[in-house]
Amino acid sequence: MGNVTIPVGQAVQQSAEAEADILKGVFAAHRLLAVNLVSSPGSGKTTLIEALIGALAGRKRIAVVEGDVETDIDAARIRKHGVQVHQIMTRSSCHIPPFMLREALGRLDLGSVDILVIENVGNLVCPAEIPLGEDVRVVALSVTEGDEKPLKYPLIFRTSSLLALTKIDLLPYVRFDVGNVETAARAINPEVGIFRMSSVTGEGIAAFADRLAALHDAKVG
Amino acid sequence: MGNVTIPVGQAVQQSAEAEADILKGVFAAHRLLAVNLVSSPGSGKTTLIEALIGALAGRKRIAVVEGDVETDIDAARIRKHGVQVHQIMTRSSCHIPPFMLREALGRLDLGSVDILVIENVGNLVCPAEIPLGEDVRVVALSVTEGDEKPLKYPLIFRTSSLLALTKIDLLPYVRFDVGNVETAARAINPEVGIFRMSSVTGEGIAAFADRLAALHDAKVG
Repeated sequence: MGNVTIPVGQAVQQSAEAEADILKGVFAAHRLLAVNLVSSPGSGKTTLIEALIGALAGRKRIAVVEGDVETDIDAARIRKHGVQVHQIMTRSSCHIPPFMLREALGRLDLGSVDILVIENVGNLVCPAEIPLGEDVRVVALSVTEGDEKPLKYPLIFRTSSLLALTKIDLLPYVRFDVGNVETAARAINPEVGIFRMSSVTGEGIAAFADRLAALHDAKVG
Repeated sequence: MGNVTIPVGQAVQQSAEAEADILKGVFAAHRLLAVNLVSSPGSGKTTLIEALIGALAGRKRIAVVEGDVETDIDAARIRKHGVQVHQIMTRSSCHIPPFMLREALGRLDLGSVDILVIENVGNLVCPAEIPLGEDVRVVALSVTEGDEKPLKYPLIFRTSSLLALTKIDLLPYVRFDVGNVETAARAINPEVGIFRMSSVTGEGIAAFADRLAALHDAKVG
């Protein structure tokens, strides 16, 4: 038997896109807005989701899929808010694989969901490469992380339609130029919608929640 | 021709370990201490290296290999301190691959280096799985990231012999229980050496620098 050359990367990518199309069909069938929330570990994704649940209460029905390498700490936090939640543990995977999301969706009552927030594994590289059929990709960047991050991780900033600048209450205590990061983000993605926010003070949360609600309205027309 | 089953993951891992052994040999031949510095994006790795260069000046000769997906921003920062530095751009890779480190070493004068600091790509998942032949793996965790991180990313905390708790100057402004994180880290890795530090105030930098200097002394005996 001779050597066999297998274009593994290409095959994986095609499979990921086919999987994403299946997920997109599930979201469309249930008339829900799927939000893929990506960031570094510790940017405040879970806290942002908790704030959104409050801001959208009575307007939109939220469900959450949590993705972590290990533990169900985040799902336990979300569950206290009385919304549907399912925890994915990816084990060694640095992103939520589409097949795991498909399994998770089977455990939720999607007929009673308007906005599904998928909190991806904390990572600025891997989740950028794996579409989950989402309507909106949101990248969160906390002001403690450094304003050069869009330049260092261009793919995730290019493929996210919204940028959540989190923890702006900490701006007085860190070296972080909001203007620099906004310029860098727009150079990579001119259409990006940028929201400055703090889950501690509540600043900017309502505007961000309104944008997601409007995107759901537009989808279900 | 029938189907062929290829244990890709296993083959990749064996190759990575063989590559790491080669690197270990290079470090031993040059009697230098290799430090693999890992963390989330924005935990303050580059700033910590800058502080270490100052703290070790006149005692140990430092060289730095910077790893980022894109840009040479970090190498430019380090170069200003007058030490040898080489920037690796990994493009789509979420960690420094051993072969790229090997190439980088060829561009440094290793005969005049005591401590080589390798700043890995900002990521708590991928770098944990790829040994670089290092003598010491240091995981940095900033106090803005959340004290549950050792539970969520156990592999990187288990395989790191030192934990640098960075940005402790921000403790008054964030919800972060240093006791919790130390307990979680020691549950995963009882032998871990924990250093609380701030590159802004300088607190803890000297103790951490002394530890690295002592590890180099012990290696070259």
